[in-house]
Amino acid sequence: MAQIKIGIIGFGTVGTGTVEALLANKAIISERLGAEIIIKKIADLDIRTERGIALDKNLLTSDVKEVLTDPEIDIVVELIGGIEPARTFILEALQNGKHVVTANKALMAEKGVELFRAAEQHKVHLAFEASVGGGIPVIHTMREGLAANRIRNIMGILNGTSNYILTEMTQKGIPYDQAVKEAQALGYAEVPPTLDVNGTDAAHKLTILITMAYGRPVSFNAIHREGIEYLTPEDIQFADEFGYRLKLLAIARDRGDQGVEARVHLTMIPRDHILGNVNGPFNAIYVDGDFVGPNLYYGQGAGKKPTASAVVSDIMDISRCIMQPETNYLAPLGRDFSQKKELVIKKMDDLEMIYYIRFYAVDQPGLVAVIAGILAKYNISIASMMQKGREVNGAVPIVMLTHEAKEKNMQKAILEINQSKEVSPGKTVLIRVETGKL
Amino acid sequence: MAQIKIGIIGFGTVGTGTVEALLANKAIISERLGAEIIIKKIADLDIRTERGIALDKNLLTSDVKEVLTDPEIDIVVELIGGIEPARTFILEALQNGKHVVTANKALMAEKGVELFRAAEQHKVHLAFEASVGGGIPVIHTMREGLAANRIRNIMGILNGTSNYILTEMTQKGIPYDQAVKEAQALGYAEVPPTLDVNGTDAAHKLTILITMAYGRPVSFNAIHREGIEYLTPEDIQFADEFGYRLKLLAIARDRGDQGVEARVHLTMIPRDHILGNVNGPFNAIYVDGDFVGPNLYYGQGAGKKPTASAVVSDIMDISRCIMQPETNYLAPLGRDFSQKKELVIKKMDDLEMIYYIRFYAVDQPGLVAVIAGILAKYNISIASMMQKGREVNGAVPIVMLTHEAKEKNMQKAILEINQSKEVSPGKTVLIRVETGKL
Repeated sequence: MAQIKIGIIGFGTVGTGTVEALLANKAIISERLGAEIIIKKIADLDIRTERGIALDKNLLTSDVKEVLTDPEIDIVVELIGGIEPARTFILEALQNGKHVVTANKALMAEKGVELFRAAEQHKVHLAFEASVGGGIPVIHTMREGLAANRIRNIMGILNGTSNYILTEMTQKGIPYDQAVKEAQALGYAEVPPTLDVNGTDAAHKLTILITMAYGRPVSFNAIHREGIEYLTPEDIQFADEFGYRLKLLAIARDRGDQGVEARVHLTMIPRDHILGNVNGPFNAIYVDGDFVGPNLYYGQGAGKKPTASAVVSDIMDISRCIMQPETNYLAPLGRDFSQKKELVIKKMDDLEMIYYIRFYAVDQPGLVAVIAGILAKYNISIASMMQKGREVNGAVPIVMLTHEAKEKNMQKAILEINQSKEVSPGKTVLIRVETGKL
Repeated sequence: MAQIKIGIIGFGTVGTGTVEALLANKAIISERLGAEIIIKKIADLDIRTERGIALDKNLLTSDVKEVLTDPEIDIVVELIGGIEPARTFILEALQNGKHVVTANKALMAEKGVELFRAAEQHKVHLAFEASVGGGIPVIHTMREGLAANRIRNIMGILNGTSNYILTEMTQKGIPYDQAVKEAQALGYAEVPPTLDVNGTDAAHKLTILITMAYGRPVSFNAIHREGIEYLTPEDIQFADEFGYRLKLLAIARDRGDQGVEARVHLTMIPRDHILGNVNGPFNAIYVDGDFVGPNLYYGQGAGKKPTASAVVSDIMDISRCIMQPETNYLAPLGRDFSQKKELVIKKMDDLEMIYYIRFYAVDQPGLVAVIAGILAKYNISIASMMQKGREVNGAVPIVMLTHEAKEKNMQKAILEINQSKEVSPGKTVLIRVETGKL
């Protein structure tokens, strides 16, 4: 199998997550890619702290040159953040003919054009999925999935910290300072939280999204930005009475010949708009294209694992490019998919689920005992029960939610319930329940 | 500029939309791609009906062989739907060394493995973004954006027709038959609506998603499927009392060594789960990966323009592959992006928006007249006003929503309001409002 060798600069939270993803999903990644990704070197000033990963200590170096100049390394992954020295390291990597993956939003927003120029000159790839929206693959989506569209409108909740603070203020009615303290206690906000709450972080990400959408260099400083620091619970309450929720939105709108509107500020958005319902530390990007119409992408906008997901997807993309033309880039299912063994789909009978059942019965003493008895016989226990609603032909509807039960048992129980004389003729309705938990 | 030549089979709704997208956004597409997409031939049994597109009539043919055998055509786009003759046409195109783009979900779900085998043998691309989720680029996302993840769970609202019917039943309390009739009147449902409402269409799409997620052939018939035909408003009401919404969900779950759970059926999902709030004809795909965590992708799941968006994105992907290695595939911003003129960002002062303002004032006769007078002077009109809430130091909060007004004028008006003697000292709060409309 082909090998792609990478070097990582920065072994902090995201660097650790990236290594974890490459190790934990090594088999899946190799199969999807048709190549093996080898971590050749990891550079960090601190190579002593234990990261909790079983890793050959010889991979670690405190000398970044060992990554930047190693002729075997195909892809350099920059995960230190901030403008310098990240900019210098990336430029040097590009000049050395290495492809670069970065999660660095500030750098991409403020110095992106310089980096692209170097990548173009040296004919290498520069990928930055993790710079916007954490694990949400919005850069891929803008670049490829929506490539047929003129982008008319972007509205993004791009900063999870401020969205968490706003959600707490809204749901608990607490003031800004208190919500910030809670966010800091949970690790959702830094001390001080400045760049997250004053709109700078969201404006960085918006700059990158606009660059993608319009294919032109964008001046970060031309984007108006305001934060959430001045918001009071009182204004949240008033907004609610008008039918609105408060969000820190990053907004871009194509105004044709007049240019593009771009701004980050607290925004009132209708309560029933899908963006009005993105809560907690989540991010969402709403994009309206002239053909696709409105689309929304939602997920965790930060954090070790989601960001690692984005970083590794970029490494895999570039790896596919490096392997061209031997490997079919679009082979979406790995090499020789059609020769593979069929996936085992579990039999429906064997699945375990929560069930809602509804039937009609004459409300009489002993009814529940009969039904509960039938369910118990098949090892099904009742979580809740309701007898409510209008009488039809002397019978009333009875509804139940079960605890987890086996499909096969449930089907047998239903058959038996339908045959019992206490239950009115007619089919018992069975609806399966998902709690959203795994 | 390089040219990529395509032939289209099927000039119905989606075919027409695809041609419209290629013509309407020709300049954008060429710039993003670094190549021009040329429509060489369009085959349809009906080449007489007026499609409302300015098109050279010589492009039309009723002989599909003219597309399948034209040596100049790089990519064949199959948009007729159904198993046959689409299958035969695609196989012939692949055998002739042509890349294929299709929107055909039934074919991909039931005969996908056969098509992939032919694509692998002939070393050509087979792309099918439009087969799931309409314009939502979920296939791209599974293939690339989430490639680093083990997919633990997929829950999709994959059929817009049935979701529209369920939404109407829920919001209006009407029975199934009536909701179907309304959906048919609006063009959201076919007559009869069978494949949409009995779970078959959603199961086709789930088959494709599982194939992407697990990289193994999947037997469509192994997927349990049920429809929505038996649902009553009564059960919707009971579910609501338990805190649930009803959705036709397509569900897949990784059960490790035991295989994969896969099923399509009516499902109760908590009212506050993001999927519980996907209404009307919209689709949404919720994917949980071991690193990315929960993600959701939302948009129009069908229709001429969204589907065309997906078809054209596939054409562009394959075009990039064809042009490799001269063009940098990942050049996300078109060729020589860094040399391009900077994007014009409109000045904040010149933007027009709706505003919320809040200040404190002593509630006295003439107060509103003074404020309204200041706003009128700057050409700002009041849409609604509220005087509510507790008194602070003898003053009460006054909140207003304006009609669209110019930012520059609003800032001047606020300054003047802050200086007027009727208003209590302190900064007037200004929050901008987005209605979600363009």
